Amino acid sequence: MRRKEFEVQDREQCESFLSEKHDGVLTFAGTDGWPKAVPLNYVYHREAIYFHGSKNGEKMAGLALDPKAEFVVYQAHAFIPSYFTDPYLACPATVFFRSVRIRGHVEQVTDPAEKASALHTLMGQMQPEGGHAPIDAEDERYASSLKGVAVMRLDPLEMTGKFKFGQNLSEKRRDQVVQALGERDLSNDLDTIKHIRDSALKCPIHKQ
Amino acid sequence: MRRKEFEVQDREQCESFLSEKHDGVLTFAGTDGWPKAVPLNYVYHREAIYFHGSKNGEKMAGLALDPKAEFVVYQAHAFIPSYFTDPYLACPATVFFRSVRIRGHVEQVTDPAEKASALHTLMGQMQPEGGHAPIDAEDERYASSLKGVAVMRLDPLEMTGKFKFGQNLSEKRRDQVVQALGERDLSNDLDTIKHIRDSALKCPIHKQ
Repeated sequence: MRRKEFEVQDREQCESFLSEKHDGVLTFAGTDGWPKAVPLNYVYHREAIYFHGSKNGEKMAGLALDPKAEFVVYQAHAFIPSYFTDPYLACPATVFFRSVRIRGHVEQVTDPAEKASALHTLMGQMQPEGGHAPIDAEDERYASSLKGVAVMRLDPLEMTGKFKFGQNLSEKRRDQVVQALGERDLSNDLDTIKHIRDSALKCPIHKQ
Repeated sequence: MRRKEFEVQDREQCESFLSEKHDGVLTFAGTDGWPKAVPLNYVYHREAIYFHGSKNGEKMAGLALDPKAEFVVYQAHAFIPSYFTDPYLACPATVFFRSVRIRGHVEQVTDPAEKASALHTLMGQMQPEGGHAPIDAEDERYASSLKGVAVMRLDPLEMTGKFKFGQNLSEKRRDQVVQALGERDLSNDLDTIKHIRDSALKCPIHKQ
């Protein structure tokens, strides 16, 4: 998955992916010296990753000791069976995906207005139809909840995207995949074809 | 997400979830001292997590230096909007999900037969319709690919499941959620209702 041809340098593309998605995995060192992987909901807001949770527990304890973290968001788009391009070997089987990894230090947010703003933006993405009062630090009905919840912010020091859509394939093989996806026509396949075409335009160099 | 009422002690339930899914995030310490989060495809095979990749790169370098890892598999089942149970506050909004976290040491598999067996099982799950020759260490057409690919095995020292399906809700609120999900009827909602009922049976204690 580390092959250079899949790497996305375009910050806007990474940010657009981060804004589409709502869950990822936060990685940090635990107080016991073991790496920890915690799935959580997040919102990309003001160029940072915000998430919330309990004020106690392993996440807060580990990050208090060492705030270095990596956060990853991943989406599998399509499984590409081996027989799309090879009648015998299993080796060409693969998954086309998008992922973004962000490295940075995690800080606890203490300003009630910033907490409210992050949570309100998260709600706007998860529940765009509304149906709740705006989360506002000035609204007394939210005051105790806002005080009780921990809101964390990860400011990106590095952001790396990897969008794998067959950029390493020859034009012939890529065409075979596009045609086979069009015939398979699972719910996501037309969208995947669009990603393959976009990626081929952005990364015209291929190796096979 | 660390609340005890969501924890699954039943190994069989965790293993069944691991067998359903095909991707997760591997967490380890990088050679630069930063935590790393790498999404990858895996197969749960012979009570271990197997995954494959390049013989070079950050994953192999980090794990060679420190093989301690945590692997997490996550599935979001349903977003539960706040208005299912509260006409005003956003606070009850949540996601029902399943996740399993596995801690252990990652070892590189060197035996060609074990490599072939793991990859063949992975293919059986990803491409159950077949359409490729069995991956067999004795098959010469696979020999160089098997030699070239790194296969890693994570033997679980600890396995923790968290299946969150409203176990913390009062019976009244849980009924409200079940009814609202039934009315919403998104593709996954009936399956989520089943999980809510199973979880309520297994965890009859509630707090609200």
